[in-house]
Amino acid sequence: MAAGKGTRMKSALPKVLHRLGGRALLQHVLDTAASLQARKVVVITGHGAAQVEAACQANTGTNYAMEFARQEPQLGTGHAVQQALPHLADDGVVVVLSGDVPLTQADTLFHLIAASGGTRLALLTLEMPDPTGYGRIVRNADGAVRAIVEHKDASPEQRHIQEVYSGIMAVPAASLRRWLARLGNHNAQGEYYLTDIVRFAVSDGEAVVAHKITDAVQVAGVNSPVQLAQLERAYQLGVAHKLMEEGVRLADPARLDVRGDLSCAHDVSIDVNCVFEGQVNLGEGVRIGANCVIANAVIEAGAVIHPFTHIDGEKLGVTVGVGSLIGPFARLRPGARLGSEVHIGNFVEVKNSTLADGAKANHLAYLGDATVGERVNFGAGSITANYDGANKHRTVIGADVHVGSNCVLIAPLTLGAGGTVGGGSTLTKSTPPGALTVARGKQVSIADWSRPKKAPKA
Amino acid sequence: MAAGKGTRMKSALPKVLHRLGGRALLQHVLDTAASLQARKVVVITGHGAAQVEAACQANTGTNYAMEFARQEPQLGTGHAVQQALPHLADDGVVVVLSGDVPLTQADTLFHLIAASGGTRLALLTLEMPDPTGYGRIVRNADGAVRAIVEHKDASPEQRHIQEVYSGIMAVPAASLRRWLARLGNHNAQGEYYLTDIVRFAVSDGEAVVAHKITDAVQVAGVNSPVQLAQLERAYQLGVAHKLMEEGVRLADPARLDVRGDLSCAHDVSIDVNCVFEGQVNLGEGVRIGANCVIANAVIEAGAVIHPFTHIDGEKLGVTVGVGSLIGPFARLRPGARLGSEVHIGNFVEVKNSTLADGAKANHLAYLGDATVGERVNFGAGSITANYDGANKHRTVIGADVHVGSNCVLIAPLTLGAGGTVGGGSTLTKSTPPGALTVARGKQVSIADWSRPKKAPKA
Amino acid sequence: MAAGKGTRMKSALPKVLHRLGGRALLQHVLDTAASLQARKVVVITGHGAAQVEAACQANTGTNYAMEFARQEPQLGTGHAVQQALPHLADDGVVVVLSGDVPLTQADTLFHLIAASGGTRLALLTLEMPDPTGYGRIVRNADGAVRAIVEHKDASPEQRHIQEVYSGIMAVPAASLRRWLARLGNHNAQGEYYLTDIVRFAVSDGEAVVAHKITDAVQVAGVNSPVQLAQLERAYQLGVAHKLMEEGVRLADPARLDVRGDLSCAHDVSIDVNCVFEGQVNLGEGVRIGANCVIANAVIEAGAVIHPFTHIDGEKLGVTVGVGSLIGPFARLRPGARLGSEVHIGNFVEVKNSTLADGAKANHLAYLGDATVGERVNFGAGSITANYDGANKHRTVIGADVHVGSNCVLIAPLTLGAGGTVGGGSTLTKSTPPGALTVARGKQVSIADWSRPKKAPKA
Repeated sequence: MAAGKGTRMKSALPKVLHRLGGRALLQHVLDTAASLQARKVVVITGHGAAQVEAACQANTGTNYAMEFARQEPQLGTGHAVQQALPHLADDGVVVVLSGDVPLTQADTLFHLIAASGGTRLALLTLEMPDPTGYGRIVRNADGAVRAIVEHKDASPEQRHIQEVYSGIMAVPAASLRRWLARLGNHNAQGEYYLTDIVRFAVSDGEAVVAHKITDAVQVAGVNSPVQLAQLERAYQLGVAHKLMEEGVRLADPARLDVRGDLSCAHDVSIDVNCVFEGQVNLGEGVRIGANCVIANAVIEAGAVIHPFTHIDGEKLGVTVGVGSLIGPFARLRPGARLGSEVHIGNFVEVKNSTLADGAKANHLAYLGDATVGERVNFGAGSITANYDGANKHRTVIGADVHVGSNCVLIAPLTLGAGGTVGGGSTLTKSTPPGALTVARGKQVSIADWSRPKKAPKA
Repeated sequence: MAAGKGTRMKSALPKVLHRLGGRALLQHVLDTAASLQARKVVVITGHGAAQVEAACQANTGTNYAMEFARQEPQLGTGHAVQQALPHLADDGVVVVLSGDVPLTQADTLFHLIAASGGTRLALLTLEMPDPTGYGRIVRNADGAVRAIVEHKDASPEQRHIQEVYSGIMAVPAASLRRWLARLGNHNAQGEYYLTDIVRFAVSDGEAVVAHKITDAVQVAGVNSPVQLAQLERAYQLGVAHKLMEEGVRLADPARLDVRGDLSCAHDVSIDVNCVFEGQVNLGEGVRIGANCVIANAVIEAGAVIHPFTHIDGEKLGVTVGVGSLIGPFARLRPGARLGSEVHIGNFVEVKNSTLADGAKANHLAYLGDATVGERVNFGAGSITANYDGANKHRTVIGADVHVGSNCVLIAPLTLGAGGTVGGGSTLTKSTPPGALTVARGKQVSIADWSRPKKAPKA
Repeated sequence: MAAGKGTRMKSALPKVLHRLGGRALLQHVLDTAASLQARKVVVITGHGAAQVEAACQANTGTNYAMEFARQEPQLGTGHAVQQALPHLADDGVVVVLSGDVPLTQADTLFHLIAASGGTRLALLTLEMPDPTGYGRIVRNADGAVRAIVEHKDASPEQRHIQEVYSGIMAVPAASLRRWLARLGNHNAQGEYYLTDIVRFAVSDGEAVVAHKITDAVQVAGVNSPVQLAQLERAYQLGVAHKLMEEGVRLADPARLDVRGDLSCAHDVSIDVNCVFEGQVNLGEGVRIGANCVIANAVIEAGAVIHPFTHIDGEKLGVTVGVGSLIGPFARLRPGARLGSEVHIGNFVEVKNSTLADGAKANHLAYLGDATVGERVNFGAGSITANYDGANKHRTVIGADVHVGSNCVLIAPLTLGAGGTVGGGSTLTKSTPPGALTVARGKQVSIADWSRPKKAPKA
């Protein structure tokens, strides 16, 4: 179910497309469905249907058939599921999930499906310390579910029941079809409620079972930015604990954000306040300093990422080689490919460039569209001028070249191996190997020069 | 009351001038008084009186008369209020507030004043789970307040009372004047206690009422850095919740600091660990990346502020236009006025400069005192040399100019529209429109040059 | 005891060498032992013994004899202490500590030793709200300890006991020697348990006493990255509270990390999310902005460190003089020595350089191996080229020199006092005092120049 408007989100974005841990709420649910090996997933859309459907389809790599059913107008949960019926075969079990309940674990749903046994209506229920306001699960003496009783309709004894309905159920498709046909909307809201099928099952003498959990996070829905933030934190703490259990050392589990997939080898340590996005792989012994933002990158064994480093490989990726030292205040952009023992220092930007083993750019530099050889030293303040205002050109720097400070290399250009470029030079032509190249004005001093004086205030 | 020393703050700054949420503690109280539309505010000063009074007066836009009464020496709360009496007319209600209790809500005080009804002594009281150590509110069978009983004087039954006095009261001015005249200091500390007036009211047969709240934060005082930090966090969480209820998406409400007024349009999202100061306006759909510090700025719709961006408009303000992209590692300083779709990239500083629509400075640059035309591309490492050592001069760059890398534009200077400046050029004179301008040494290579060798260790 | 493997840490590093608050777990214990003025410390090593012993010895300034006893293989706590016996004289009291229990306070151990009185076995015990799983302390009617009963062996009444053994004891050396000789390993694990000596003491009719605490953090051990992170946070909150009690204003005590020793004078304020490492001294009134990382530095009175500043003095140290302004986005590296009122601005790096009073480098600059005179203004984008590819050379800039923008000073070089260097100059030779020096190409414009066009896509 992904048709709701989400008014309380106060957003133009459909509620189920809001992100948690870097993925849309609905995508979490779809990914869980995928891990259930569902035969088919039917997404019931309504508000912002086209946008929601496009977002679902943009997600690649799904291993199941995905179909869409539109619910317009939205007349309640029962009505929503009715729209999906034409997409469902009669021989399966239907698991009804909400697109705004992102953190249900697949294991929980496997247990729910097992409870259903393919023949019974099975409700996922939650044991709550304070169930005030929630629909209570009333059971028979034998434990079978007899009814879901809304809080306002509950007797004083029933209000002591701490087991409540989660909104998630597993139900045989044939039974679902039969019961949905009997739904009415004779209630204050004039809506069709899916939970009414519990009453039908009981009156039909069919068993209704429940799988009870105690972890409220798994069935928590997102209706407002406050709830979204709460679930985001629950999710991130869960990620942090999982990483620590794998051996990752986190300076502060409450100050880690992983929005995607962070994979860590042994003896990785991550300092406070780091953010990871997309697919990030950290090799053995990698150390990430405080306040780093790292996305879509492979950091190989032994590399050290100093504080305040920003890495984002986007689609091209970024690779940081074995034992490299990056930052502080470094930025690696898409297509930065650094070999072993490369040093990228403060206020240095690398974009779409390959740096071979041992190359260094330690201060205030820009390397864009460059191929940099082994052991090259790229001086402070030096820049590859890769853009002529219309096209990008490539700079090739041979092995062992030393580029002085504040140089400009106007691409396309090749610096021959072993050469040296004097500080302050602007090069427009390629240079021979082993040569010293300079392009510089002559130094002239004018004695006893008097600097401008502070202008008097008007 | 703002006369206390605040010894436990261990600070040279008077306690009431310590800041919470960017405002002095006392200023919070004054702002609350202003929202009560108080006829007059009398600030009772003592320790650091001159400094406290100056700070009060520096705050502009107050809509009430503010007068000062000095309490020297400080002989208790009753003595403090006695100093204010000459400033008070007899026909009003006096609300006694503490300058170190910053987070009382105006609504609460309206209720307190209503309870007073202009004729009764009304105490603001707090229901506490554990009232140990606090003065209990003892009531008659009819609910009227009979006494405030200090913890040490309380009977075992009285110690079970969970309602305690908050330190805040509303009292008719004429009654206050009468009761204050009866205060004595026959106690261990030799001080005059304002709470004694409760006893006088009761013995005079006058009704004493109470308005009870349960939110301890509203009456919490600041006596130490620990308490200040606790209230700061409570305040910030409150700000975060208010923003979220307005629809702002916060990645982590516990890692947001707003020290001033943050105003957000729809669909604003703010990543972890951001700090906002002064007046900041964020337009529709603005995204603020992780670890940004933003003060006194207007960020228009659709702009994206990447991580590690520092913006501070101070008095001149900063404007970031519609759809602009800023950062990471960018700094916008006072007077930066960016049009639509402007790009300011990493390691770029902009100060007192106007950038027209579509202008870009993506890497390692300084724009100071510059007027930059539409679609200008300001190259990596390029700098406006606006300071001759004594005076600042202006750089004017016409529309569609491309400035190459590592250029220096020595102001005053005008680059004609559509012109190009070759990389590595230092310009001291204006350039004609449409021209290519270069100022560069000739490139010379010396073959087979042998670089210096590592000096042997001494 | 520092012989354990720490399997759950999932690390190649021996468990006791993992760091908490910047120091190895074992080092915390050794430092506590030092503050007890222990006559001798015997470190029982096993897993990673050589590495652990080397780490202990690398710690300088210990004021006690440290000896090592190797436990190989590891056959239990009793067996561990047996290895230490040859190092212990018979006339003292032995305090048995665990290398993975870092936060025991010396005061607690003084009390434990006092309880022992030099003649009794004294156990450090903990009162726990939920003691499930822990060994209970069973006492006689007179309060003397009768036994430690493991949870699984405890009677229902014993399970109500909330006092548990902490793993720490003080025991007269002679008694310890006697009892250890009687240890057996007739248990499921085949290990020798130190706690068995309690039984021996009781059966010998010797008094066993306990010193009970309630602060679980003091006896918490580290067995996993999760526990390490929990203790790290407990430790950091403790540090934060201690600083606040000394008068330091912390914007958020939960977002401060001190890994070493942070010493603060009066009226220091520290904004959110700062990290301090090594020895850092902050003078009176120093303000540290948000997101700073500061290590091994002295920041003198009144200096302001703006957000995103990275300072690391490592072995050489960094000094920031009185009233200096640093950052945002500044980096001070080892050997940066700044006088009073020095300004280091955004994207500026200073390494192994002395800046005299009033010197400024406000934008995009690198000062390495430089001696900078009073009131020097070092222009935006300017760089000291201190490295010729093999050796480092020194740049000396006399007082009152103004260096323009994007200059390169190729060391070794001296700029005479009062001189000026024109923007964009590359200097290779020293300059006379008071002179204007430029080294620049001639500015030439080519009219009606047509910029490259965007290449058509292939």
